[in-house]
Amino acid sequence: MSNVLAVDVIRSKRDGNSLNTEQIQAFIDAATHESWPDYQLSALLMAIWIRGMTAAEVACLTRCMTNSGKRYDWSDIPGPKVDKHSTGGVGDKTSLILAPLVAACGGIVPMMSGRGLGHTGGTLDKLESIPGFRANLTEPELRESLRTVGIGLIGQTGEVAPADKKLYALRDVTGTVESMPLITASILSKKLAEGIDALVMDVKFGRGAFMQKYSDAKALAQLIVNVGIANNLKTEALLTDMNCPLGATVGNSLEVIECIEILKGKVSSPLTDLSMLLAARMLRITGLAVNEEDAVNRLQRVLSNGQALEKLRQTIEKQGGDPRVIDDYSRFPMASKTTFLKAPQSGYVHAIDAWNIGRGTMILGAGRSRAEDQIDHGVGVRLKKQVGDALQAGDDWLEIIHREDSVPRQALDLFQSALEIFSEPPTQVALIKEIIS
Amino acid sequence: MSNVLAVDVIRSKRDGNSLNTEQIQAFIDAATHESWPDYQLSALLMAIWIRGMTAAEVACLTRCMTNSGKRYDWSDIPGPKVDKHSTGGVGDKTSLILAPLVAACGGIVPMMSGRGLGHTGGTLDKLESIPGFRANLTEPELRESLRTVGIGLIGQTGEVAPADKKLYALRDVTGTVESMPLITASILSKKLAEGIDALVMDVKFGRGAFMQKYSDAKALAQLIVNVGIANNLKTEALLTDMNCPLGATVGNSLEVIECIEILKGKVSSPLTDLSMLLAARMLRITGLAVNEEDAVNRLQRVLSNGQALEKLRQTIEKQGGDPRVIDDYSRFPMASKTTFLKAPQSGYVHAIDAWNIGRGTMILGAGRSRAEDQIDHGVGVRLKKQVGDALQAGDDWLEIIHREDSVPRQALDLFQSALEIFSEPPTQVALIKEIIS
Repeated sequence: MSNVLAVDVIRSKRDGNSLNTEQIQAFIDAATHESWPDYQLSALLMAIWIRGMTAAEVACLTRCMTNSGKRYDWSDIPGPKVDKHSTGGVGDKTSLILAPLVAACGGIVPMMSGRGLGHTGGTLDKLESIPGFRANLTEPELRESLRTVGIGLIGQTGEVAPADKKLYALRDVTGTVESMPLITASILSKKLAEGIDALVMDVKFGRGAFMQKYSDAKALAQLIVNVGIANNLKTEALLTDMNCPLGATVGNSLEVIECIEILKGKVSSPLTDLSMLLAARMLRITGLAVNEEDAVNRLQRVLSNGQALEKLRQTIEKQGGDPRVIDDYSRFPMASKTTFLKAPQSGYVHAIDAWNIGRGTMILGAGRSRAEDQIDHGVGVRLKKQVGDALQAGDDWLEIIHREDSVPRQALDLFQSALEIFSEPPTQVALIKEIIS
Repeated sequence: MSNVLAVDVIRSKRDGNSLNTEQIQAFIDAATHESWPDYQLSALLMAIWIRGMTAAEVACLTRCMTNSGKRYDWSDIPGPKVDKHSTGGVGDKTSLILAPLVAACGGIVPMMSGRGLGHTGGTLDKLESIPGFRANLTEPELRESLRTVGIGLIGQTGEVAPADKKLYALRDVTGTVESMPLITASILSKKLAEGIDALVMDVKFGRGAFMQKYSDAKALAQLIVNVGIANNLKTEALLTDMNCPLGATVGNSLEVIECIEILKGKVSSPLTDLSMLLAARMLRITGLAVNEEDAVNRLQRVLSNGQALEKLRQTIEKQGGDPRVIDDYSRFPMASKTTFLKAPQSGYVHAIDAWNIGRGTMILGAGRSRAEDQIDHGVGVRLKKQVGDALQAGDDWLEIIHREDSVPRQALDLFQSALEIFSEPPTQVALIKEIIS
C-alpha cells in the first residue's frame, strides 16, 4: 500500500490537475480493497467527471483497473485472440453472429458480456434464452471451449477488474456514469483482462444509444482507440447508427432466432451487413485476412458452407445449452399472446425510435429497470417494416409478443409513438458513419 | 420527505445548474436524517465545490441548515441580540474582550463558539483554561445568563444545525472544505440558530488565516453579508489582517490573561484597537449607539469604569468558573518551563509569521492536529516584539512557555523561521483593510 492520501488525490483532481501514476494506482488499490471509504471514492469520481482526464491518465487508470484482478492468458492456444464490444443498443445482437463467423475463419474469441439494463439488451440475457445455456464457465472449461471451438461466451466475474465493479456500482448512484474517461477505463479494463490481442469497438450514436450525440460518440471512440493502443491492444472503432433498432426483432429468444436465421444464410438485412463488416474488421486487424476483399470472401464462405452455424451449435453444446434449438425454434421460451400494431396512415417509414422500442420491450419484461430485476426471455417485438419501407394505412408494422392478456398501456404508448411516417421516402442513412483506426 | 431523488440533484449541480428550493431542502433533510448515503452527499458536495452556488442558493442552503435543528428565541429578553464571528486566526481573542464591552453597553450576546483545529485557536479552548468554566449550559442556564449578565458563551451542541455537523465531517475528509458557498452556509446557519438580530463578521486574510488571499477573503465577506441580509440578519463584515498573530500572546491561559489585562485598561495594542472597533460596529448595527463617536465613548466609559471587566467576572461565575482568576493569574494552569528566542541580527521586525507561530504553539500542546486531541491550556508563547519594533541582535523576541524540559525541535524551527528582520523600518499596514456592510 502506498503513502498517497485520499484527500490529496481528491484535491488534486478537484483543482483540475492531472493525476500521476502513483495517485491513480492508490485510487484503484483503494477501490479494489475498499481501503478508502465510499464517500472519498465518490468525491473523486465526481471530480473526475467534471474535470476530466487526459488520454495518458485514462491509459494508466485502465491499466491499473485491469491489474486489479485476474487477467486471462491464452498464449498456449494458437491463433489470434480478438473480440468485438458494443457500447449497447436496441436489438444489437451482432456478437452472436460474428463470433461464429470469426471463429470459423480461425480467430479465437473469448467474449465477456454483460446483462441488459434500461432500454438496452445484453448478450448474456439473449444467450440465456437457450435452454440450459450457462455463461459461468470455469477457467478450464473456458480454455477447453476456446481451444476446441474458438469461442467462449462468459459473464463478468468478481475476479475480473474488481475495481471496475466497485466503481461502477458507486457511479451508478452518484451521477457519475456518463464520463468518457470512466467509461473508457471501464470497457477497456475488462477487455484487456480477456487476454485478447485485438478489439473492434462498435460505438453507437443516436436515439437508442448511450451517447445520443454523434460528436460525443466520436470523442469516446477516439479515446477508446488511443487508450487501447497505449495498452498494447490493437484497437479500432466503428461509429454506427442506433436511431432505429438493429435487425427485425427486439427480445431475447426472438433475437437469438434471428441470428440463427442469418447464420443459415436466410436473411439479408442491415444487421447481416453490420455483422459481416465487424467480422471483416476483426479478420483484418488480426491479420487473418490480408485485405477487405479477402475478409469478405472468407466470411461468405463460412456462412454459405454452414461452418459458422456449426461453430454456434458447438458453442451452445459446450456451454450446456440445447443445440437442438438451432433446428427447432419451438424449444425457445416464447410467450403465447400476440398483438399487432397497424399503421395510422399511408406513406414511408422515416423513423422507428430505438429508445421507445427498447423501453417498451423492457416494460413487456424483456429487460430490466433495475439490475436485480428478473427478465422474461419469451417476450419482445418483431418489426414488420423498416425505415424506408412504404406502407398503407392499416398495415401491420409491429408484432408484439407478450405474456399478459393485454399489452401494458405504457408500452403501447411507447411503441405507437416510435413510428414516424411521411408521404415522401426518406433519404438513405448509412448505418456505419465512420471508422477510427 | 420529498420525492426528490439524490441522483437527480447531484446530476443537476454536476451540470452546473442552480438547485431549486425543493432540491436544497431535500439535500439538507437527507444530511440531517442521514437518509442519503454518505457517498451521495459527498458527490454533491464535490459538485458544489467545483460548480459553485449563486447567492440565492446559498441563502436557501443556509436557511434549510438553520431549520434542520434548534433555533433559540430570546425575544422575551429585552435588548438587541448581537454576535461577532471570526473566520479564525492565531492569537485571535477579541470575543473575550468585546462580549463584556457590548454587554456592559446593553447588548445581549449569545455566542456559540468552536474549538481550535490546526494552527488556529478556539474561543472555547481559551475559556476552558479558567478552572471550572463550562460551556455546556442548559437552555434555562443560558437564558438566565443572558437575562442577568447579557452574555452566554457556549459550544455548538448536536441540536443546533445538525445538517452542518454532518456535512462538515464529510467535507473534512473529501477535500470539500474550502468552498465559499459551503463555508458561508456553515457559519451563518449556526449564527442564525443563536437567535441574534445582528452579526459583525471578522473575515481574516493573510498567512495565519483560512483564506490567505485578500481577494478570496473579500469574496467570502461579500457573500456572507449578502446571505445574512437575505435571511433577515443585519450583517456586516470587516476584512482584517492575519499575517502576524493578534496580540502579544498565543496559548489558552496566556490569551485569557491578556484579555483581562485589556479589560482592566492596562494595555493599548492592535488587539485592543480591533476589539474596540468590532464592539463599536456591534453597538452601531444594533442601534445601541447612534454613531461611531457615540459608540467609542460608551465603550471607553464601560472600559474605564470597570463595568466591562465586571461583566466578564459575572460571566465566569455564571458558567461555573473561578472568578478569582481575574485578580490572581496564578490560578490559571501554566507550564513551568520557559525558553527565550533571541534575535539573530539587529534591525526592524517586518513579519512574525502567524502560521508558523500557530503551528509551533500547536506542537507545544496548545492546539489540536486532530479534533480528538487533548490540549494543554498552560503552554504558549509571548511575543516580546511586534511588527515595526526595532531590535538588537541578541534581544529576546519570543518567550516560549512549555511543559517538557525542552522545546520540540519542530516547534523551535517554526518559531525561528517566523521572524523576519530588515535594516529599514517596515511600512505601516492597516489592521482593518475594508468594511463591507
